[in-house]
Amino acid sequence: MPNPTAAMLVIGDEILSGRTRDANTYYLAGQLTAAGIDLTEVRVVSDNRAAIIAAVQALSGSCDRVFTSGGIGPTHDDITADCIAAAFDAHIDIREDARAILAEHYAKSGTVLNAARLRMARIPDGAQLIDNPVSAAPGFTIANVHVMAGVPSVFQAMVASVLPTLTGGAPLISKSIRINRGEGDIAAPLAEIAASYPELSIGCYPFQKDGRYGANVVIRGTEGRMVDEALAALAAQFAA
Amino acid sequence: MPNPTAAMLVIGDEILSGRTRDANTYYLAGQLTAAGIDLTEVRVVSDNRAAIIAAVQALSGSCDRVFTSGGIGPTHDDITADCIAAAFDAHIDIREDARAILAEHYAKSGTVLNAARLRMARIPDGAQLIDNPVSAAPGFTIANVHVMAGVPSVFQAMVASVLPTLTGGAPLISKSIRINRGEGDIAAPLAEIAASYPELSIGCYPFQKDGRYGANVVIRGTEGRMVDEALAALAAQFAA
Repeated sequence: MPNPTAAMLVIGDEILSGRTRDANTYYLAGQLTAAGIDLTEVRVVSDNRAAIIAAVQALSGSCDRVFTSGGIGPTHDDITADCIAAAFDAHIDIREDARAILAEHYAKSGTVLNAARLRMARIPDGAQLIDNPVSAAPGFTIANVHVMAGVPSVFQAMVASVLPTLTGGAPLISKSIRINRGEGDIAAPLAEIAASYPELSIGCYPFQKDGRYGANVVIRGTEGRMVDEALAALAAQFAA
Repeated sequence: MPNPTAAMLVIGDEILSGRTRDANTYYLAGQLTAAGIDLTEVRVVSDNRAAIIAAVQALSGSCDRVFTSGGIGPTHDDITADCIAAAFDAHIDIREDARAILAEHYAKSGTVLNAARLRMARIPDGAQLIDNPVSAAPGFTIANVHVMAGVPSVFQAMVASVLPTLTGGAPLISKSIRINRGEGDIAAPLAEIAASYPELSIGCYPFQKDGRYGANVVIRGTEGRMVDEALAALAAQFAA
């Protein structure tokens, strides 16, 4: 059985303007690979209602799971929760379970739970809350979409809350070999090996260091024995 | 007149598996913002023919310019050029102008221009070559799509070749202010200022440092005077 698939949807003008470098995709990619879930697409869209709704509907339809990051804070540009609700035609308002979490959290520090902070309790009907041990304001899961924060420490904590609840496939085994030859010399033998092992994903990533060319070849698959076999076949071609 | 729009399409299994962290999107975002071109969407897809064709067709239709990175090297998983040709129904084969560039480059180092390296001369009919001062193998432009390498140093060199040929709009002016208050306290006054300046894009990016909360508010727009005015209005609200 093929592994389940996932998509990542990054929401935020700050990524597209180049102000902020997205860190969440790289983190999620590593976590999903280890869990046996194949990340098949990533999209980044701006804080624009139509763009968010269209992207979440497309990805929710094409992948088993969708993870979103960004736009669930208290300010005027945090429109993700309302857009996700609209994408699934769900009613959204301040929900009592989320409000209670915020109330308890802010009471501890004597912070007023004002109208802006209450925006973070806007959760679509029928959604399950995602625990946020870092700063309390919850994410949520609706249909196959996990809606999470953009701040990396909070995003990572939410991934840790969600991942154990998902059923993964076989984790991908990845091995690599460094070959001190130009990519153009590696290509032909590599293509033969790739053709012999259609179940494996084989990539070649060139580098240039101190004026010399080389490449790291990465072989990935769910069967360790097969990965080792292909790696040995490649190594034999380039033995000194 | 609104600024021209652009999309970035990152192609490569290594990004989706978490092996490699994409560096090109962040670089391109900064360059486009400075040039007055609005990056409105980013997608990352795997080395999969159907996925690449669908993404490039969608983005080419929705944005003024599309920039792709990755998949134009000599190995079996480098399928970008052929997919782009298919997306535009263009014929593709080894093209003499590209072959000549490679022949001259490899002759210098006494490297054989073998079948694998010749793959990098596969260029769709009608496409314009993009200069690659780093490692010779050219990118190309077809319709509104600029097809470039994934290796960051080469990608950056190709962006430098392409950008001066594009007409940008007004460069975005961006100013920021650090406010040492919780985002929930900033939200209400910020929403009022955002409503008064609909032409500006205003974002609020919270941080937590040494146990204290704060946020950087970023105000962006094409008119410097308006950006300064909004910034002053916000600063006045939080003056000590």
